[in-house]
Amino acid sequence: MRIGLDAMGGDFAPEATVKGAVLAQKELPVGNQIVLIGNTDQIRRILKEENADEHAFEFVHTSEFIGMADHPTKAIAQKATASIPLGFQLLKEGHIDAFSSAGNTGAMLVGSMFSIKTIPGVIRPAMPTIVPKLKGGLGLILDVGANADCRPDNLLQFGILGKLLLENIYGVKNPRVGLINIGEEPEKGNLLTQAAYALMREEPSFNFIGNVEGRDLFTDMADVIVCDGFTGNVILKLAETFYTLTVRKGFNDVFFDRFNYEQYGGSPILGVNAPVVVGHGISSPEAIKNMILLSQDMVTTKLTEKIRRIFN
Amino acid sequence: MRIGLDAMGGDFAPEATVKGAVLAQKELPVGNQIVLIGNTDQIRRILKEENADEHAFEFVHTSEFIGMADHPTKAIAQKATASIPLGFQLLKEGHIDAFSSAGNTGAMLVGSMFSIKTIPGVIRPAMPTIVPKLKGGLGLILDVGANADCRPDNLLQFGILGKLLLENIYGVKNPRVGLINIGEEPEKGNLLTQAAYALMREEPSFNFIGNVEGRDLFTDMADVIVCDGFTGNVILKLAETFYTLTVRKGFNDVFFDRFNYEQYGGSPILGVNAPVVVGHGISSPEAIKNMILLSQDMVTTKLTEKIRRIFN
Repeated sequence: MRIGLDAMGGDFAPEATVKGAVLAQKELPVGNQIVLIGNTDQIRRILKEENADEHAFEFVHTSEFIGMADHPTKAIAQKATASIPLGFQLLKEGHIDAFSSAGNTGAMLVGSMFSIKTIPGVIRPAMPTIVPKLKGGLGLILDVGANADCRPDNLLQFGILGKLLLENIYGVKNPRVGLINIGEEPEKGNLLTQAAYALMREEPSFNFIGNVEGRDLFTDMADVIVCDGFTGNVILKLAETFYTLTVRKGFNDVFFDRFNYEQYGGSPILGVNAPVVVGHGISSPEAIKNMILLSQDMVTTKLTEKIRRIFN
Repeated sequence: MRIGLDAMGGDFAPEATVKGAVLAQKELPVGNQIVLIGNTDQIRRILKEENADEHAFEFVHTSEFIGMADHPTKAIAQKATASIPLGFQLLKEGHIDAFSSAGNTGAMLVGSMFSIKTIPGVIRPAMPTIVPKLKGGLGLILDVGANADCRPDNLLQFGILGKLLLENIYGVKNPRVGLINIGEEPEKGNLLTQAAYALMREEPSFNFIGNVEGRDLFTDMADVIVCDGFTGNVILKLAETFYTLTVRKGFNDVFFDRFNYEQYGGSPILGVNAPVVVGHGISSPEAIKNMILLSQDMVTTKLTEKIRRIFN
């Protein structure tokens, strides 16, 4: 298996990305190769500094890259040889089996939809984030920002995508799917969640447990929590803030420690035709390592094929 | 001034409400009278247990009340003599100058809109909640649940209502108004926030500082943070969860202490024709006291008249 990494993506690239690749390479099973996409001179220099064997890696050179502030659609169209579009080209042509980047999230979304494209039947891809549970274990919330405006059938599909991810990558059997709402009863909510509830209740492919509220995010009520990308993004940023505050204030706690994004590596773009993972802009080498291992997991478990089969 | 209190409203009523009224009565300036609406036998018994002078209070008797689980519209229509509709009748007829309850929030909303009615020009009333700021001081977020589905002009009006509340009751001069969004740039967001941004930018009556994100809730970016009631309610319940977790885990911190709802008393229903405050269902006597003092403040500062003037 060949795992593509955007060596130029992220606030601390290429140092953090290359160091992360070195860490990941030590943990990957034999037969897995990391393909470093970016400025080969810079990458080789960092590998040397790290005393890493450059023969353990493959390289695809480009001197161009898409910045964090670049407009996603424009950048993908105008910077065709930048590391992100190049990665997607390699992925589309089958030279790599997965592609990940801690760079411009919008460019990763647009790039995946333009190149490898959305799986037939999936209306819109979604991005989940991991939620630690108070009793231990992990849950998911999605979408957290790929879809600011959603229709009820988007939310239904997010439930299916989230269930498949949690089951295949995180080993949660028959995950319980809940809908973020502002009340427990079926008739509660806004027009979107009222309609989504009706659809989700009838869905045979997952175990729908009904509405969950903001206060249920970390409890044991649901494993996969579904919401529109606007609500999900606000939740994600608020939760990150609370985590940051507990760290800044010196609170030591195993539960809050599990909010640390580093250990989860990144968010897959679910519903596109190949494994794609987007990391946090501030990704450290540890986070990059976990992003690479997550994308390897997605290939190994054939997650994309499983999604394709259910939407076929 | 006569301040009406639903003595039967809240999870710990009438004990907590009557005890709260006794506490408030000691702090109210001379000439202010608390009117206890509810089961007079029960209320008098609790006053006696508290060694409170019952002549310091007025009483309006009813043996009926609306429960926390009652359907708001049905309950208001079918239980006309319950403490909440009775309170609104007294408020409408001018027998009391303000009305507050820690009971059924939906019934308080429906009751206020059916009796004293919305101020002409206000499309929908809104409910704010207080947000402690990291650097000290307070901000507001609204709406937190009165309006699950919003139009752009609802959000614009929430900004005006929130600004007037923060300025008049909390003494924040020329509050900065921000819009909850999923990106800082004007073009970011969902259809609702994109359209609301365009309206809010042109509004002359407040100081609009643009988009704020989930991470900016507690920072010094904006004083009044506007969002639809679905997003606001999810944020509120998530923030309450974090506060509860810090308490349960024994973290002592002045900032997190300021999340304690007790000290703020409750949420006004902004945009109706008289001062109305809704308290948290779990209100303690301390919270009830602060709810009464808040409703008194709303009368003293003539907040309703000021809102009426701006929407005229």
